[in-house]
Amino acid sequence: MSNLQMIEAAATRLDGHARRTPLLASPFLDDIAGRRVLVKPECLQHTGSFKFRGGWSALSALDDATRARGVIAFSSGNHAQGVALAAKRHGAPAVIIMPADAPRMKIDNTRALGAEVVLYDRAREDRDAIGDRLAAERGLTLIKPFDEPQVIAGQGTVGLEIARQAADAGVDAADVLVCCGGGGLTSGIALALEGHAPGLRARTVEPQEFDDVARSLRSGGIERNTRTSDSLCDAIVTPQPGQITFPIMKRLCGPGLVVSEEQAQHAMALAFARLKIVLEPGGAVALAAALFHPDAIEGDTVIAVATGGNVDAQIFCDALARFPA
Amino acid sequence: MSNLQMIEAAATRLDGHARRTPLLASPFLDDIAGRRVLVKPECLQHTGSFKFRGGWSALSALDDATRARGVIAFSSGNHAQGVALAAKRHGAPAVIIMPADAPRMKIDNTRALGAEVVLYDRAREDRDAIGDRLAAERGLTLIKPFDEPQVIAGQGTVGLEIARQAADAGVDAADVLVCCGGGGLTSGIALALEGHAPGLRARTVEPQEFDDVARSLRSGGIERNTRTSDSLCDAIVTPQPGQITFPIMKRLCGPGLVVSEEQAQHAMALAFARLKIVLEPGGAVALAAALFHPDAIEGDTVIAVATGGNVDAQIFCDALARFPA
Repeated sequence: MSNLQMIEAAATRLDGHARRTPLLASPFLDDIAGRRVLVKPECLQHTGSFKFRGGWSALSALDDATRARGVIAFSSGNHAQGVALAAKRHGAPAVIIMPADAPRMKIDNTRALGAEVVLYDRAREDRDAIGDRLAAERGLTLIKPFDEPQVIAGQGTVGLEIARQAADAGVDAADVLVCCGGGGLTSGIALALEGHAPGLRARTVEPQEFDDVARSLRSGGIERNTRTSDSLCDAIVTPQPGQITFPIMKRLCGPGLVVSEEQAQHAMALAFARLKIVLEPGGAVALAAALFHPDAIEGDTVIAVATGGNVDAQIFCDALARFPA
Repeated sequence: MSNLQMIEAAATRLDGHARRTPLLASPFLDDIAGRRVLVKPECLQHTGSFKFRGGWSALSALDDATRARGVIAFSSGNHAQGVALAAKRHGAPAVIIMPADAPRMKIDNTRALGAEVVLYDRAREDRDAIGDRLAAERGLTLIKPFDEPQVIAGQGTVGLEIARQAADAGVDAADVLVCCGGGGLTSGIALALEGHAPGLRARTVEPQEFDDVARSLRSGGIERNTRTSDSLCDAIVTPQPGQITFPIMKRLCGPGLVVSEEQAQHAMALAFARLKIVLEPGGAVALAAALFHPDAIEGDTVIAVATGGNVDAQIFCDALARFPA
């Protein structure tokens, strides 16, 4: 249901609309990691995260009449903004269901991108039920954040770019670390690498206490998180891996990596000082694993996908203060 | 003495060594400016500023025997790091003369990049005299920060990239705003645009009270700053435009723009929130002019070169606190 051909087709639809992000590096990061570190800064993507790719892929795959009725999405913030901008640029209405405790900036930005925002209580309400009801009432098409083939295909274009950029950099074997929530980005990248760079292997990275994917990869079956809120890494906290994404990750990914929130903050500070990019905590966990878990990684080079940069100034500056350069 | 052919030759020598930075944009910035804003983030260049280009260009233009004896440079920080890394990658020794009051991070980084750092007192000592003496004693080649043809040629490769990227974005007429110290980057870009994108016009941007280039462009002769320290925009404060760079700027650039330090800080905060990049105050003045001086700019699109991101966390977070998103 998700495959390389869908990713390649999504890449064609995204051409000229999504940004091709570069690969960044710093000798200072190489010294810390003990190997060459290449960083794919998807924080520089439109709306500040890779999610624009999946949003654009899904919107552009709809037929005109369906798209004109509009789309609906639920998201803690990054998927919201990605779908909102993709819908705006397609001239389609968008309704976004967001948790009331999402970062204020993400809620504000989603509204400013032209979407109608519906807030819900993460602890007491079922976002799926709300989404289903609104979709039925208004004839909207639901764009799920990860367990949706066209979204996976869009995120997989990151993997196509990494395959080409790694080859250009002379890298034919490496672990590719991906900040992982529901697994849409990781599974898309894994499929793209399988087809275009078989020496590169996708690996998930999650924050401690929200390591459902690492545990699922270990047990072989889908495991759940016991809680899904109060993480500094809010962008990548989901209840469990997806029904579509997990089998792909199980087949293609190495063991999952887990980092502490403190390590994510340290990676944010180093990305500020050494790469001059802004990462949110959830967008920094892959870089944290690359820097601080060298023994869990194979090869002379590691590639870390820095997935997003939508962070409030206070949280960002707390990380810089905690880990001075 | 500086011309398009030298810039094109420098581009060939830089290929595969300098990073081709993308063009970034955000609908939120367009709304503020009242026109389309494209940002060239040279903060993402190796060592965090465009200066690596000039350093690499100069080092790679030396004959092997001269290069092996080593190079010397004086700099408030960004040129220092650019030359240090370029020298290290060429296997050549580098001596860098830096003001004792330069940001600590820049001094530390220059040393960490393998250079020997010599500190001097900006108010009481003559850096040129120190440089001449050390160069003579050790047979080092002096690489001036801006008034040096091969350095101008290296910086001019930014202009070649802008010409190509603007064409790809459908832009054939625009002001290209450049954070300007001695004019090496601006004059290089101006020459590149003259040859490859004649509808694009380079314009200088400086901080208030350090507007020697704007005054020189107005009077037609080289004007000096009355002071050259205590600016938040330390990276782009020089006593006066160069003997080589000024005639080029006088021939090709529009009137110079001037922004307040407060506007530079505001641009830093907006680059954090909307582009997810880290800018130092001096690297943000061009974006500040694009956003806050709309009446001084012509055309539907403006291109701002964000020249560097080497900033201490405290100065960065002060700007974010002063201008919350």
